[in-house]
Amino acid sequence: MKSKPPIDFWCDFISPYGYLASLRIDALAARHGREVRWHPMLLGISVLKVMGLKPIMETPLKQDYVPREIGRYLRLYGLQLQRALGAAPMNPLPAARAFAWLLRHDAAHARGFAHQVYDRYWRHGEDLSESAALADAARGAGIAAQTMALATGAEGAALLRAEVDAAISSGVFGSPFFIVDGEPFFGVDKLELIEHWLEEGGW
Amino acid sequence: MKSKPPIDFWCDFISPYGYLASLRIDALAARHGREVRWHPMLLGISVLKVMGLKPIMETPLKQDYVPREIGRYLRLYGLQLQRALGAAPMNPLPAARAFAWLLRHDAAHARGFAHQVYDRYWRHGEDLSESAALADAARGAGIAAQTMALATGAEGAALLRAEVDAAISSGVFGSPFFIVDGEPFFGVDKLELIEHWLEEGGW
Repeated sequence: MKSKPPIDFWCDFISPYGYLASLRIDALAARHGREVRWHPMLLGISVLKVMGLKPIMETPLKQDYVPREIGRYLRLYGLQLQRALGAAPMNPLPAARAFAWLLRHDAAHARGFAHQVYDRYWRHGEDLSESAALADAARGAGIAAQTMALATGAEGAALLRAEVDAAISSGVFGSPFFIVDGEPFFGVDKLELIEHWLEEGGW
Repeated sequence: MKSKPPIDFWCDFISPYGYLASLRIDALAARHGREVRWHPMLLGISVLKVMGLKPIMETPLKQDYVPREIGRYLRLYGLQLQRALGAAPMNPLPAARAFAWLLRHDAAHARGFAHQVYDRYWRHGEDLSESAALADAARGAGIAAQTMALATGAEGAALLRAEVDAAISSGVFGSPFFIVDGEPFFGVDKLELIEHWLEEGGW
């Protein structure tokens, strides 16, 4: 029997919306017999450079709306964050490079690593741009410090650049972003529509 | 018995997302014993001037995404549009001024007028920046041409300015935008969350 095509999911660790989606997408896909292929992306490239927009938390009106919306999602999901939404984001490159490297060379640990990064960054407020903190997060996912030294290096950087280029070519501009059966879905608020799409076999 | 507070709903006629929401918000609210207070807003003020962003259909990547997303909603809703999404929008001011005037002076006809404008603009592809076409739309909602001459004049312009200022002060930046029990919700993709909010009495 031909298996159903996977769902592609793009995340930037500095997006709280990406974090929220990361907690739900795998179970959602599994309910419909789908796998999820996770990908790193960089909002700093897509939103700032390609689209020519401002960071969301520096955009008038939107910067006041986002904490209200995230606050509602957190209450709905029963979550609390130690990281303030208005705080300057960490440098996402070390974590994103390592994630790109793990996806290629150690796929069994890659998703666990992404969950660790999201959890420590958002829920515990840790700064994972420091290599010691990032190595701690990796250890939490069963990845050795030696592996991380390799993963955050030049090859990880090249793999991340390739992922970011591929994301832009696929029309991916935000996080979370999903492509399901060739259809692009942007935003955590699309999870219900994705579920509906999977139930109905498209519409 | 104290009645439940109304839902505030902001629309700009040139937004296809606002059009989609306009077709569902009243019935959604009624299912939960709520009234809807409709308001005009202008994306040209909030998005372009206050937020300093580009029009959505002139933003790289996003301009390719929007037709895909709107296409899905149209299939889901069983609708077809004669207006192309990439076409230059009409001047929304005459219709928005008239809507602001009707809300103040002829509330019984205001909502029917808004539905006529949305339907003719999006579904039939008419340009309602011309006063003859706008008067036709108004006639479809039972409003005399004489009333429209008044509604699109200086008082309508002043009432629209006041609505747009009030929208910005309330943090409204896009269309559709909703405020429910003091909580701001942006986007047609929030209708399910609004329904959930009304069912649960907040979360």
